[in-house]
Amino acid sequence: MICANLEVSPSGHLTFGGRDTAELAEKYGTPLYLMDERRIRENCRVYTNAFRKHFGENALPLYAGKAACFKRIYAVVGSEGLGIDVVSPGEVHTAFLAGFPMENAYFHGSNKADADIAFAMEKGVGTFVVDGPDELAAVDRIAGERGIRQKILLRLTPGIDPHTYEAVSTGKVDSKFGVAIETGQARELAAQALGMKNISLEGFHCHVGSQVFEEDIFQRTSLVMLRFFAQMRADFDFETKLYDIGGGYGVRYVESDGFVDIEKRIGEVAACIKTTVAELGIPMPKILMEPGRSIVADAGLTLYTVGSVKRITGYKNYVSVDGGMTDNPRYALYGSKYTVYAAERMNEAADFPCDLVGRCCESGDIIQPDVLLPEPKRGDLIAVCTTGAYNYSMASNYNRVCRPPIVMVDGENDTVAVRRESLEDLTQNDL
Amino acid sequence: MICANLEVSPSGHLTFGGRDTAELAEKYGTPLYLMDERRIRENCRVYTNAFRKHFGENALPLYAGKAACFKRIYAVVGSEGLGIDVVSPGEVHTAFLAGFPMENAYFHGSNKADADIAFAMEKGVGTFVVDGPDELAAVDRIAGERGIRQKILLRLTPGIDPHTYEAVSTGKVDSKFGVAIETGQARELAAQALGMKNISLEGFHCHVGSQVFEEDIFQRTSLVMLRFFAQMRADFDFETKLYDIGGGYGVRYVESDGFVDIEKRIGEVAACIKTTVAELGIPMPKILMEPGRSIVADAGLTLYTVGSVKRITGYKNYVSVDGGMTDNPRYALYGSKYTVYAAERMNEAADFPCDLVGRCCESGDIIQPDVLLPEPKRGDLIAVCTTGAYNYSMASNYNRVCRPPIVMVDGENDTVAVRRESLEDLTQNDL
Repeated sequence: MICANLEVSPSGHLTFGGRDTAELAEKYGTPLYLMDERRIRENCRVYTNAFRKHFGENALPLYAGKAACFKRIYAVVGSEGLGIDVVSPGEVHTAFLAGFPMENAYFHGSNKADADIAFAMEKGVGTFVVDGPDELAAVDRIAGERGIRQKILLRLTPGIDPHTYEAVSTGKVDSKFGVAIETGQARELAAQALGMKNISLEGFHCHVGSQVFEEDIFQRTSLVMLRFFAQMRADFDFETKLYDIGGGYGVRYVESDGFVDIEKRIGEVAACIKTTVAELGIPMPKILMEPGRSIVADAGLTLYTVGSVKRITGYKNYVSVDGGMTDNPRYALYGSKYTVYAAERMNEAADFPCDLVGRCCESGDIIQPDVLLPEPKRGDLIAVCTTGAYNYSMASNYNRVCRPPIVMVDGENDTVAVRRESLEDLTQNDL
Repeated sequence: MICANLEVSPSGHLTFGGRDTAELAEKYGTPLYLMDERRIRENCRVYTNAFRKHFGENALPLYAGKAACFKRIYAVVGSEGLGIDVVSPGEVHTAFLAGFPMENAYFHGSNKADADIAFAMEKGVGTFVVDGPDELAAVDRIAGERGIRQKILLRLTPGIDPHTYEAVSTGKVDSKFGVAIETGQARELAAQALGMKNISLEGFHCHVGSQVFEEDIFQRTSLVMLRFFAQMRADFDFETKLYDIGGGYGVRYVESDGFVDIEKRIGEVAACIKTTVAELGIPMPKILMEPGRSIVADAGLTLYTVGSVKRITGYKNYVSVDGGMTDNPRYALYGSKYTVYAAERMNEAADFPCDLVGRCCESGDIIQPDVLLPEPKRGDLIAVCTTGAYNYSMASNYNRVCRPPIVMVDGENDTVAVRRESLEDLTQNDL
């Protein structure tokens, strides 16, 4: 099976987190997002344990909520001792409502409006990750108006190309994010920040892209960043207290994807950072990292019901389900790969080639082309795996389709974490 | 100006539908969707007038609500005498709430669940556009359960490649939509429909893709479809009463896009259909068409506020605004082109090259690359034109960003048609 939390029951049903997917589909209807709370906690502990082992207590993994943002997830990652990366007033609001300790929240994002900044300060967000000069001036001004000294990190672009796909490659110099070390703009902005009386510069952040499989990307990045810290110390006698190395490690979507041994990789990054810090003669900063996808992706699975099976003589077969790009736009956006199963027919030969497509009136509404299933019929249950990240969070109401609920499973229990959107929800703001 | 409803005021502000965009931004905040009701009505009348002129009373344009679906739009297109194309219970619900006469609604879509079918029948949807064998059986069965005889069209794929972009090319034989004429499957399904006692087959539908600029696409399609109607008459003595030729004509997004003279094109299509009908000796069916984009696209405009301007020495400039792929995912999905203006600085030279990017933590959050603006600063107002179609309807809450409101302008008046989403809306289904 593609994920560790998947099995096949004696009756040939797919189980997820120990629960029969057919029973859950029957109980909650489809389309349905399932999330496996035990798996989320296991994934969190990979990071917390590796951080403790390799960095000691002076380190904190942050959950990047943009991967999947709803109240219950903040309760789970909070209870596992993670901090959070928030990127909008909506994420701040959600975490705050969930009772998350906001001093452990880091407010990222390349475009914070004045109102966003004020809102985050009001909710007690601990640290702002400032993305550029406009924002730095705004944070200083608004902190001054509120009579506080705001802790910040500056987001830098180290000029590393992570060789992941374009849309999530953000650490290159040519990026909408951060300020470039290479051009001297990072040093200049840091100098400005040090001169501002409502700003407390704690350190620096960079993010070289998510879904990273390459062995040494965090190491190469750290070399650039740590040299910059040494320069900051030499030029301004500034000691970098926090170093947020970004995120995150790649996730397996299909059998051909590699496995990432996250604990081992973090060990290597830690060794690299420790060695470099010693060589440069700078103090070891507190290390932050921002896993999102690798916390929730394989803790998620989507269930659909087949609505139609088209066999176009001499061409192709199409299997349409009751969801699609509205609940998972990642194939439409990135051509993302997914593993698909016929959830109630796991013991049957999967020999029917087809495109698994969604219900939208749009040819591009494809969940996954070229999959193999036991020849399906209307009413069959389909599972798409590894949908815990960037599915619910990117969902839309295109074609005026209601977004599915999120049901959390946890061994014996299943609870609704997010209710199914209703027709009334769709029109509640229509006047 | 790229759209007919845009002008520049004496003070150098962009006006939209006769209203100063800066005043509207000040009143309602940004990001803000504006829609010009007069322009929507003008666009409707292009179709209704051309239909009346070229087809007489025996024709009806349907507004394809997936382009922009909210209550007020149904009131507008309904008062202009258009029917509607609906594709989901959500669209049915919205049109019904708006008081739209549901006998003029045509229920499209490639995947209608049993519950969707029952819901649409309950709301009195006039005609189902049945997409394939599974659905035909379901509609027959559910109509039987409800004791009604359901009027239907069958959706066919005529095998025409419209040479538009892939995601909206739906008339090819290899398509998730409809049943193919070429393979004999259309004839077979029609024969089945004719034998069902709860089904009243009224005619046929095809859709060769939206954003059509090619001169003769509807004519080439009609030749294939009308020959099929003649075959149906010869084989089954079946007279096609309704012929839905699909939609719709291309819209100008940028100066390099062509103009489409819709009235002239409809005249050509009508002439082709009339000639072919006469040649084939079949009766003239009632003609339906499904414009969506060409009704609302240029009746929409989005206003944003600049949050940051990045000048990366030796590389590129980035101008970030307070919206992006969350309210307009079309560049991320299709690489769509848009025309962009600095709404308060229309008389200044636009000589600052930049990428206009959104606020999401994602490199792919680009509204439009390589635009020219007067060198912007934080707080500047940006207008993205021709956003009335597939912007609001495809919007998401990615990064937990609230969706903008829709404000309708109509000469002197401006009214909220859809309220701005609130933080409370975002979490209302979170448990």
